[in-house]
Amino acid sequence: MTTMAYDEANPFAKILRGELPAHKIYEDDETFAFMDIMPRGDGHCLAIPKRPVRNILDVDPDSLAVLMRTVQKVARAVVEALGADGVTVQQFNEQAGGQEVFHLHVHIIPRFDGVALRPHTGEMADEAVLAEQARKIRAALEASRA
Amino acid sequence: MTTMAYDEANPFAKILRGELPAHKIYEDDETFAFMDIMPRGDGHCLAIPKRPVRNILDVDPDSLAVLMRTVQKVARAVVEALGADGVTVQQFNEQAGGQEVFHLHVHIIPRFDGVALRPHTGEMADEAVLAEQARKIRAALEASRA
Repeated sequence: MTTMAYDEANPFAKILRGELPAHKIYEDDETFAFMDIMPRGDGHCLAIPKRPVRNILDVDPDSLAVLMRTVQKVARAVVEALGADGVTVQQFNEQAGGQEVFHLHVHIIPRFDGVALRPHTGEMADEAVLAEQARKIRAALEASRA
Repeated sequence: MTTMAYDEANPFAKILRGELPAHKIYEDDETFAFMDIMPRGDGHCLAIPKRPVRNILDVDPDSLAVLMRTVQKVARAVVEALGADGVTVQQFNEQAGGQEVFHLHVHIIPRFDGVALRPHTGEMADEAVLAEQARKIRAALEASRA
């Protein structure tokens, strides 16, 4: 396998450029986090680096380390904000690995006892529900910094 | 949810103490990587920190960053060693999140076009197969450092 080039037209690049909307939950100089619009569970978030990298195979190690700090912050925040019983973290690389958007991203899925992951159907979540979940998670992130 | 204490009797702690065998693929001062004995795909590896942490909710951010460097090295090595078309990375936190062994670990699963993940049945892989996969992955890791 040869890792392919970065495509500037991918949806997450558009979100970072403000060309597509997103329910933002966190942002710093190097990373951005927002709600997945096709959630596999309530409160499903994504964390991405701002720089244009395709996946774990091409990202520089320092950027990956910084991204994981954001992933951890968000994981802790969803437990706090949504009362989750656990968190599933997933990160897919190349099509065979499950990747659909070719900008490095980490899935952070709050989990609740007895609730299975929903299948990935491509169905969009209700915008008002996402906005309310984002508000709660942002509040937990802000409280953790206070 | 309150994060629970670390249990020194978990299987990965035993592997780190040499009380259980493992097909080692990588080790440095802070991390260790080895073959999953119940693989969900050919070449399924695990990377863990050496220090006793339960999961992403309690690990210190620096240890998580160091662990992810090892995860990335292993991800690149399985692509090289096994000719994988992609890599699926998973990390489970608490029982609701899919965690079964309560020592922080990251799954690195080589993926091949058209091959689904096998279900998690608890079936053990053939030791000779694991040993041969480990040998190939170690060779790729060593070549990448040369």
